[in-house]
Amino acid sequence: MLLIDRFIEKIIAMQNPTCVGLDTIVDYLPAEMQEKITDNTTAAEQILEFNKKIIDSVCDVVPSVKIQIACYEMYGAAGIACFEQTANYAKEKGLFVIADGKRNDIGNTAGFYAQAFLGKKATCAVDFLTVNGYLGTDGIAPFTAECKASDKGLFALVKTSNPSSGELQNLKLENGQTVYEYMGGLVEKWGAELVGAYGYSSVGAVVGATHPAEAANLRQRLPGVFFLIPGYGAQGGNAEMLKCCFDKNGLGGVVNNSRGILCAYKKLGGAYYDAARQACVDMQKDLSDTIGKMGK
Amino acid sequence: MLLIDRFIEKIIAMQNPTCVGLDTIVDYLPAEMQEKITDNTTAAEQILEFNKKIIDSVCDVVPSVKIQIACYEMYGAAGIACFEQTANYAKEKGLFVIADGKRNDIGNTAGFYAQAFLGKKATCAVDFLTVNGYLGTDGIAPFTAECKASDKGLFALVKTSNPSSGELQNLKLENGQTVYEYMGGLVEKWGAELVGAYGYSSVGAVVGATHPAEAANLRQRLPGVFFLIPGYGAQGGNAEMLKCCFDKNGLGGVVNNSRGILCAYKKLGGAYYDAARQACVDMQKDLSDTIGKMGK
Repeated sequence: MLLIDRFIEKIIAMQNPTCVGLDTIVDYLPAEMQEKITDNTTAAEQILEFNKKIIDSVCDVVPSVKIQIACYEMYGAAGIACFEQTANYAKEKGLFVIADGKRNDIGNTAGFYAQAFLGKKATCAVDFLTVNGYLGTDGIAPFTAECKASDKGLFALVKTSNPSSGELQNLKLENGQTVYEYMGGLVEKWGAELVGAYGYSSVGAVVGATHPAEAANLRQRLPGVFFLIPGYGAQGGNAEMLKCCFDKNGLGGVVNNSRGILCAYKKLGGAYYDAARQACVDMQKDLSDTIGKMGK
Repeated sequence: MLLIDRFIEKIIAMQNPTCVGLDTIVDYLPAEMQEKITDNTTAAEQILEFNKKIIDSVCDVVPSVKIQIACYEMYGAAGIACFEQTANYAKEKGLFVIADGKRNDIGNTAGFYAQAFLGKKATCAVDFLTVNGYLGTDGIAPFTAECKASDKGLFALVKTSNPSSGELQNLKLENGQTVYEYMGGLVEKWGAELVGAYGYSSVGAVVGATHPAEAANLRQRLPGVFFLIPGYGAQGGNAEMLKCCFDKNGLGGVVNNSRGILCAYKKLGGAYYDAARQACVDMQKDLSDTIGKMGK
């Protein structure tokens, strides 16, 4: 069964399209863990311990995690080892793993990124990688080739969640389309050969919850493109704003939340992993109350 | 003295705007080095040895190296350690170091990438980082802030060297500009506070040698933007095609060559590092014959 179908079936089984964003930075750790950090190696150790406890605590209530590679690259090789171990641990616990790297390059070099994250010899158990399509089709082709060869997936940036995203993405083209609409059309084309039984492709799009008008427009234009939806929580997006990303069967996207889950203990009190689980349970209720039943 | 001025002075002193692209992959290594590779750790070891010998051999004839991070990420944490050691070694040998990562993300996350590559605690001695501006100004601001704080630089993708680059980048906007022209204007704005004595900013643009009409157009539009020019050699660009990137004083860009230098021994014979040096000497002659004297 194609990756995207397995992912959707897990979302349906859990009635939860939540993705826990493991954008773990030292500031998010409890004081007693922060105190143990003296260098990059000890930072990576404490972040890995934190991530594992979070994964243990949430793996039966959410289908997926998104690991923000920038948070690990900060610590050099030690950080990358922590990223790999986090991805592999999440995979062992049955979670779908999205590596958020927004990688991009010209063809042959893009192929090395594809090998790094999606290839058979990849050092990390990643299902989906985020990519940036500014270079056009030949910069994405090596990624989609690897998706076909190894049953992996992508999320390409289309309409990002940040305040300045419209600066380039919402510019109108001569043909009447906006840049993000045009990019959305490219993503649909890139994923055309990886569409599964639910009508969605393993090549999806990043569409921010913080721009509901654009998100609704994209859902209508791109019925076969699955969305990775950042921006819920700390960035200002909520369930009502992102409801438009989902189809009549309550499918079509996965919603990321990072700080709202990792730092829930700062609001709820108690152990960070217990608070994270509670935040996931609350988010499941919030999303399912708003989106409705997932699956026919 | 601002980074971009120091870089330009070194280019003038050497009369050579060449950047050696350390896109080192196993296939580029001599057979006897390839034979020693059994896993990621030994691959990283052999690549590091190759890079060091290349650096030793070229560091008095070229001003800079560009390290393609994708080639190192393929080997996981061991590869990243090799990337760091390569950057640090090149820096020790007096070379300007461009990390080619095309990184991009929303504001706070972009800040982590900025810390990773340009910050005071960075694990690698990088001068310039390549970035992708699809997310707009708030995704670039953390990088430019770090450039100001730590005297570092950027090269943002404007018109890339790959065949599909026009697919998005050459689209015409409603206002008559193309997407790449608009992006070029953003880059100029992002670098406005980092312009040095030669009139160029430490925030530059990636402009491929393979698209001379667009390159000439950008040089005219963006007199204060320094160009990182990929595409010379294996990708089909030559000195005549990229001459338009340079101003009347023979300044305005640095030209990358990867395979043509790293694999020169396959054509010229002899030791790979001697052939690489010869290829750099030949490239210096080719560029200076075409561009003319660099500096007033």
